[in-house]
Amino acid sequence: MDEALAEARLALDAGEVPVGAVVVHDGAIIGRGHNRRETANDPLGHAELIAIAAAARHLGRWRLFGCSLFVTLEPCPMCAGAVVNSRLDRVVYGAADPRAGAAGSIMDIVRDGRLNHRAEVVSGVRAPEAAELLRGFFAARRKSKD
Amino acid sequence: MDEALAEARLALDAGEVPVGAVVVHDGAIIGRGHNRRETANDPLGHAELIAIAAAARHLGRWRLFGCSLFVTLEPCPMCAGAVVNSRLDRVVYGAADPRAGAAGSIMDIVRDGRLNHRAEVVSGVRAPEAAELLRGFFAARRKSKD
Repeated sequence: MDEALAEARLALDAGEVPVGAVVVHDGAIIGRGHNRRETANDPLGHAELIAIAAAARHLGRWRLFGCSLFVTLEPCPMCAGAVVNSRLDRVVYGAADPRAGAAGSIMDIVRDGRLNHRAEVVSGVRAPEAAELLRGFFAARRKSKD
Repeated sequence: MDEALAEARLALDAGEVPVGAVVVHDGAIIGRGHNRRETANDPLGHAELIAIAAAARHLGRWRLFGCSLFVTLEPCPMCAGAVVNSRLDRVVYGAADPRAGAAGSIMDIVRDGRLNHRAEVVSGVRAPEAAELLRGFFAARRKSKD
């Protein structure tokens, strides 16, 4: 999660909502990403999707069994759906997202028994640091709009 | 939807599950995609994500207001979440997906009032052709495994 938080700080430095993610396989990081929606003008530029795509390229397969995703913020529906589609074993997230979180908060796509894959979820890891990054970002943005 | 079906046939020709999508803005196609999960070893290689990313590149913005997504199969949770994240006005789909459809079948992410955007949904457009493409693909695959 240290490395996911480092990715989130890269997003912050770029003026993006600070969210970072890494994919781990056999104890090694094989994909990393941070939010770059504004920088790249990409609605799909969430940290998780970037890290998952990188991990699949690294392994040369689309099924990421044996892999865990570490992300600083609870995944949104798109990213939670990507976790299912990529057959990840596990999602470890930091701060919960009560507005759009889809790994337990407003819905639970990652563990939905109707879909063809479910991933284990571990929540709240380094949550205060992840949340503080987000709080700081939004407070600064509100201030700059005053 | 003609063009989305043409994209689905390109997927079929490549040995992929035949799903195709286009994004339309002001009556013109500004993004197109077909499923390339196997070809590209990419768990995110769904038709919708490819078409949405292309449309955002074309417009140079991540908010795709004023745009409609045409897709031959009801979007999965990942792609339905991408519709919300990209602020698309409308989703027009062909065949419903009773197993994983997230625009009305097993869930309705696209019109979920708790999320920060909702898109209009039109379903069943050219559904028999879209479904027939899928049926043919899966029948052939089962036969090849006999």
